[in-house]
Amino acid sequence: MRGRFITVEGIDGAGKTTAVDHLGERLREAGIEAVATREPGGTELAEAIRDLLKGSEGEPPCEDAETLLVFAARAQHLGVTIRPALEAGQWVICDRFTDATYAYQGGGRGVPAARIRVLEEWVHGGFQPDCTLLFNLSPEEGLRRRSGEGRSNDRFEAEGLAFLEGVQAAYRERAMAAPERFHAIDAGRDWSEVVRALDEWLYREIADWRGGA
Amino acid sequence: MRGRFITVEGIDGAGKTTAVDHLGERLREAGIEAVATREPGGTELAEAIRDLLKGSEGEPPCEDAETLLVFAARAQHLGVTIRPALEAGQWVICDRFTDATYAYQGGGRGVPAARIRVLEEWVHGGFQPDCTLLFNLSPEEGLRRRSGEGRSNDRFEAEGLAFLEGVQAAYRERAMAAPERFHAIDAGRDWSEVVRALDEWLYREIADWRGGA
Repeated sequence: MRGRFITVEGIDGAGKTTAVDHLGERLREAGIEAVATREPGGTELAEAIRDLLKGSEGEPPCEDAETLLVFAARAQHLGVTIRPALEAGQWVICDRFTDATYAYQGGGRGVPAARIRVLEEWVHGGFQPDCTLLFNLSPEEGLRRRSGEGRSNDRFEAEGLAFLEGVQAAYRERAMAAPERFHAIDAGRDWSEVVRALDEWLYREIADWRGGA
Repeated sequence: MRGRFITVEGIDGAGKTTAVDHLGERLREAGIEAVATREPGGTELAEAIRDLLKGSEGEPPCEDAETLLVFAARAQHLGVTIRPALEAGQWVICDRFTDATYAYQGGGRGVPAARIRVLEEWVHGGFQPDCTLLFNLSPEEGLRRRSGEGRSNDRFEAEGLAFLEGVQAAYRERAMAAPERFHAIDAGRDWSEVVRALDEWLYREIADWRGGA
């Protein structure tokens, strides 16, 4: 039986990365093989492309080059990691996917959604996540949490509030356009409550998947 | 007055790179500012993308990732180098451009021309070279010349005769589809004869350009 493809979306600081690891562990506890991965990245080459995208030194990509690099990394990730794992019956939990391109390059940078759609169609056509967990957090709170970490910012993290508001608005639009795929997680709560919401969602999802066996 | 955008195409061993340098020098002798550049590459970021494409070590890009990386490098090259130079009145002489994508990824690897056309349209729309010099050389002679150089092969140079025949056939198709843009150079002759043919072409091209002033 084909595995499930779960993507986790939202702005930085919302706890996505921790959630991806948590879900991978819970799946393995439930006896389901799971791959926890991220975009851009997830393969050796795609991680090298990530370095070109995030680099705060050196020549920054222009808007078009940035969007094409994101999709080049995605094509590689799909071909090398995601599709083979799903076909082998594993679940794939991915920190960001194409919704993030609509959010960051679209809502953040202003690349028209129609241009992103052309590349989405070119790279993965009708292929979509089985479920997308959208971690909702206000841009102000995201910035506050991030500044508390005291780490150095990459090209995206260095963007300010207006950029993050554009990202957030685009995520909302994506979720409204495909409500059957999106599942909202209120990430402004205590982490223990977020985990409880994730676990509840996950156990229903596993039961549904096993029911389809 | 806008500069001219000249691309030089053909398989390895045909003398393209030497020709690009030669044309740049001749233009400067004629008092015309010229930029000699190459694809993939031509900017710091695009050269880093070239390394990912050509790398004989590490994870090779899948077919889709390769084509997207080629166009990402091209978008950057157009934005950072080619368009600003042309607008400043400089000529740009470029070792390979989009015809090479149709030839190598299309004719060589088998990516459908229609898929390449989508990305061409996405990246440069109607923008095309003013003239494309197509260096014609038999794939057998190309391989023979290259083996004489004794240098190590990158991922493309390691491909054999069948690949090069596909590349050559795609170049021929491109030239037949846009005869007004292509100018054929017989690269099987002595280099001195190739240079004479290039110079003759160049002086007509310069006179034409100056006539349009």
